[in-house]
Amino acid sequence: MAFLAAEYRYLAIFVVLIAGVLAAVNMSGEGRSWWIAVSFVIGASASALAGFVGMRVATDANVRTTHAAKSGLSKALDVAFSGGAVMGLTVVGLALIGLAGLFLLYTKTAIITPVDASGNAVTGWLPKLQTALNVITGFSMGASSIALFARVGGGIYTKAADVGADLVGKVEAGLPEDDPRNPAVIADNVGDNVGDVAGMGADLFESYVGAIVGAMILGLSFPSVADEAIGMGPVLLPMVIAGCGILASIGGTFFVRTKEGGNPQHALDLGAFGAAGVMAAVTFGLAKVMWPSTGTNGVTWIDVGIATVIGLAVGVLIGMITSYYCSMDKAPVNGIAEQSKTGTATNIIAGLGLGMQSTAVPILLIAAGVVGAAHFAGLYGVAIAALGMLSTTGIQLAVDAYGPIADNAGGIAEMSHQEPEVRERTDKLDAVGNTTAAIGKGFAIGSAAMTALALFAAFTQQAGIDGINISEPMVMAGIFIGGMLPYLFSSLAMNAVGEAAMDMIEEVRRQFREIDGLLEGTAAPDTARCVDISTKAALRKMVLPGAMAISAPVLVGFTMGPEALGGLLAGVTVSGVLLALFMSNAGGAWDNAKKSFEGGGYKMSDGEVHEKGSEAHKAAVVGDTVGDPFKDTAGPSLNILVKLMSVVALVIAPLLAAMN
Amino acid sequence: MAFLAAEYRYLAIFVVLIAGVLAAVNMSGEGRSWWIAVSFVIGASASALAGFVGMRVATDANVRTTHAAKSGLSKALDVAFSGGAVMGLTVVGLALIGLAGLFLLYTKTAIITPVDASGNAVTGWLPKLQTALNVITGFSMGASSIALFARVGGGIYTKAADVGADLVGKVEAGLPEDDPRNPAVIADNVGDNVGDVAGMGADLFESYVGAIVGAMILGLSFPSVADEAIGMGPVLLPMVIAGCGILASIGGTFFVRTKEGGNPQHALDLGAFGAAGVMAAVTFGLAKVMWPSTGTNGVTWIDVGIATVIGLAVGVLIGMITSYYCSMDKAPVNGIAEQSKTGTATNIIAGLGLGMQSTAVPILLIAAGVVGAAHFAGLYGVAIAALGMLSTTGIQLAVDAYGPIADNAGGIAEMSHQEPEVRERTDKLDAVGNTTAAIGKGFAIGSAAMTALALFAAFTQQAGIDGINISEPMVMAGIFIGGMLPYLFSSLAMNAVGEAAMDMIEEVRRQFREIDGLLEGTAAPDTARCVDISTKAALRKMVLPGAMAISAPVLVGFTMGPEALGGLLAGVTVSGVLLALFMSNAGGAWDNAKKSFEGGGYKMSDGEVHEKGSEAHKAAVVGDTVGDPFKDTAGPSLNILVKLMSVVALVIAPLLAAMN
Repeated sequence: MAFLAAEYRYLAIFVVLIAGVLAAVNMSGEGRSWWIAVSFVIGASASALAGFVGMRVATDANVRTTHAAKSGLSKALDVAFSGGAVMGLTVVGLALIGLAGLFLLYTKTAIITPVDASGNAVTGWLPKLQTALNVITGFSMGASSIALFARVGGGIYTKAADVGADLVGKVEAGLPEDDPRNPAVIADNVGDNVGDVAGMGADLFESYVGAIVGAMILGLSFPSVADEAIGMGPVLLPMVIAGCGILASIGGTFFVRTKEGGNPQHALDLGAFGAAGVMAAVTFGLAKVMWPSTGTNGVTWIDVGIATVIGLAVGVLIGMITSYYCSMDKAPVNGIAEQSKTGTATNIIAGLGLGMQSTAVPILLIAAGVVGAAHFAGLYGVAIAALGMLSTTGIQLAVDAYGPIADNAGGIAEMSHQEPEVRERTDKLDAVGNTTAAIGKGFAIGSAAMTALALFAAFTQQAGIDGINISEPMVMAGIFIGGMLPYLFSSLAMNAVGEAAMDMIEEVRRQFREIDGLLEGTAAPDTARCVDISTKAALRKMVLPGAMAISAPVLVGFTMGPEALGGLLAGVTVSGVLLALFMSNAGGAWDNAKKSFEGGGYKMSDGEVHEKGSEAHKAAVVGDTVGDPFKDTAGPSLNILVKLMSVVALVIAPLLAAMN
Repeated sequence: MAFLAAEYRYLAIFVVLIAGVLAAVNMSGEGRSWWIAVSFVIGASASALAGFVGMRVATDANVRTTHAAKSGLSKALDVAFSGGAVMGLTVVGLALIGLAGLFLLYTKTAIITPVDASGNAVTGWLPKLQTALNVITGFSMGASSIALFARVGGGIYTKAADVGADLVGKVEAGLPEDDPRNPAVIADNVGDNVGDVAGMGADLFESYVGAIVGAMILGLSFPSVADEAIGMGPVLLPMVIAGCGILASIGGTFFVRTKEGGNPQHALDLGAFGAAGVMAAVTFGLAKVMWPSTGTNGVTWIDVGIATVIGLAVGVLIGMITSYYCSMDKAPVNGIAEQSKTGTATNIIAGLGLGMQSTAVPILLIAAGVVGAAHFAGLYGVAIAALGMLSTTGIQLAVDAYGPIADNAGGIAEMSHQEPEVRERTDKLDAVGNTTAAIGKGFAIGSAAMTALALFAAFTQQAGIDGINISEPMVMAGIFIGGMLPYLFSSLAMNAVGEAAMDMIEEVRRQFREIDGLLEGTAAPDTARCVDISTKAALRKMVLPGAMAISAPVLVGFTMGPEALGGLLAGVTVSGVLLALFMSNAGGAWDNAKKSFEGGGYKMSDGEVHEKGSEAHKAAVVGDTVGDPFKDTAGPSLNILVKLMSVVALVIAPLLAAMN
């Protein structure tokens, strides 16, 4: 938790800083920006709190899962999954409570006074609603800022500690994995929780909030919402769908049960797919009840239901594709394992090629989802599809957080010398965790893409621009610059890992050299120092990429105009999603290609078996090391980049509209 | 030349096939598409002829350069550069003669009859001019098709042979580089010429033609061109600028002289920059004389001159940036060399990070170039900037083709046991060649980007669409799919290399096993068989990526509409240029990081010297092997992808316009 203490301190400073800037920019003369700042702080706090709870629960669940594995597989699954479920439901619960609370506060009290262009107060429901939703974008931006910390900072933290612990502790000093004599081990373990639990939680928190806010703002495009009494369906539906999604997720958790000797994968699938199936049906019911009969530009409740289901389907399919490309015993990973036979270079080339290839189907699915959802319900349909995809985030995140819990439980079983069957059971849980992690990563990228598009659509509406014409040179330039930013962002993140790892390596070497009796186990390592290095490096090195993500939309928006900013967002979304898919899938595939050689060894197509320690395995280890910053730092950080830039654009949109 | 014979046979079939399809699609009832097919065949033939001449001259120049090096550095530079100059001037000469000839044919004879929408013949200058320029797009598409063969097929060919020759011949059998007993050596040597000479030539031929055609078509947007007598400046200027660029290039070649002990780099720079400087001045003069005084929508001759100079400047700057990222003794390459100390994984990560980072400045330059050129002369300005960048292609290509000639001359000096000072002189020429090759690759990517944008702008005009609005779901989907294609294309190209190399490895092993006395030098290898494998693999494996590049715009255009096709082109251009910069620069940097260890060894920042054969050098060799398909196959192929898709869209644009 040491990282938390330090990171949360800096994070608080950062949040206050941004909030101050937001508050200072008095957006339209009536103090609205103060409330954006308040929303921002609340959004940031809710996300940070969810991450904190998630990490605490996950840490506790590790030990308890090992303990439960003594009584049987079913019990162990129950405990491990419950840990994940607490995390998942905390995230969606806090997100929805925060959003709904602020919405009621801003629409039902008089604390916000809408004004017209010349600064005079105006009355009426519609101006109030518009102002309220604009102010609420601050909540979404707060969530994005925490996600930036958790994903970028967390990604740098975890890989710096990982590399330091491995290269000096394992390779140079010959210590086993997780040996307490290794000064960087604590930092490494904390890092796993930061990256896999808090990072993923904050990422999905951001997507969840972004999709709801985006859909609500696009709901303003329907004339019906001017009538508060009977026409508010388009604006309220996103929140209600999200609420029912939480209930469906809770329901889904009850299906996650397995018998001794059963396959935990089936239990998890049943829970997740069950919740998704229920949501598909429920959405139609909700749409039928809530959708206004007039003033909806010809969009019917059936159209809205179909758009939601399209989003759900795209999310599930992208997860499955990702899992295909990253799973052991499937053709892609086996292909990399085969190529390891001729050495490191062919392993790396195969992984890079596979990562590139793996972008094709998910992108076609996203494109089809956008066209399909928009066919039924316009840009609102795109946002509602994003929300459909994310409606069961509660159980998705539960399944996702279950992975690292099961992984750590296995480690604890090993270190505390439990009976073999305990380790066998935790291994079974862990194997499933690898697959769910792959699905979760694909889902996170897919949902980031859809959320970014929803926010982008909301931006175009709020900025009051008619269209963003690619043939305009400014827009063209915006797309080019936007497309480049994910490359620059990734290179900064990867360099940060490299430099932080170097510092860690030197510190671990120094401790082995200077602390007498450390290697003999008679003296304790200075673990706090290693944690400190990772923490400081993570915070220092995320300043530049973070500043870039926040300032680029502001700079482009105010100097090149809102259309160029639209181009920038399109460029960053397309290029960011592609690069994220490429890096995450290549990294995941390299990881499992390496694992293919462990256990009983990998049988090549010529029948020869290559075991752990063989030349082929060594080549695969290098591939895995290259893949680590790809899949754990740069790749997931891009999810944040695309959403954060869109939400910053959305926050400044009214200002841009006022200027034009 | 064996590859040529085989490839040219298939190439002829391919050209006839596409021409047949073009001819069969009777575009608007008056047989215009027959003339598109004729233009296509002429364009393809001109490009193929230029490549053929270039390869012949380069092969001859190799030996003659070695011979000349006996008399001195100055003489050797003269011979090597003359070889390149013949290639460069053949490319630009054939391109311009073909274009100008077809333009005269179609505008000055009665063989083309323009028709209106209902198929009735119309008279007048403007319809004739419009039809003629539309028909001429076939020439550009022909050039693109040959570029596809030379870059994609050539890239697969050369790397398959290279890997096969190295892995079995050098590593397994322990033969030295270029040993005549190695069955794959001939294929490898032919491959170098195919990739570096013919590939680069066809690539720039395509850019050159595309930029001229794009600018001519955009010239139609000025009302003045309706008056054949005094207003044709906007349409004719691109051809005249290109013509003067050839003269400037010829003039520039006279400055490429050096004294004994001088630096050939300065001589080459003087020639290239001198030609560019002269062109900047000449363009203003041409614009002043040719630009009409009325009917130009407020664009003046000064505006046109400035747009041209912007393009020239962007081209030179991108080349310099690329050279910075890929040159020995500069910070980026040294950074990779440093990271080789901790092993292969850190070398690879550093190279990938560097490649990503290297995209930033070139993209900002392109964006600034687009905005600047358009500020002065609208979309015509963007096209004329592309042309400005390409106007001195003659000498650029001469400098570029000089590199492989100097390289091969060194090899011949070594194998024919010349005096040490001969090798010293050729080494001096070769070292410069490495830098010019890096600059040339950057220039090729930059010019591909600008040409694609010019063709894109011409497409929007010809397709008769008002604007391509990113907020439209179809356009959004188009951008996503377009952005994904370069990833898929690259993965196909890289897989093709991997598979073809495997076939080559097996064949070389078979020959060593089955031909008695081969290793002892008493029996000759079956080199023809290896050449055959590379040729067949290159041709077979390029079918899928090639078909994808040609069919994607047609499919998207006719099923999703011209606006979605516009989105597709924007996506493929941005994503393709980024990926090409990333892969080419990472590959170039890895190459030189490896070379840093050769010679006297590389001195790390801690003062330790790591020599050839050290662990750090071995790690750098793996990096170089990973970089090979990046920089020699996938990266350059993307230049072709972005231009080919744009030109296909331009060819079908009138058909799409007629349908809407």
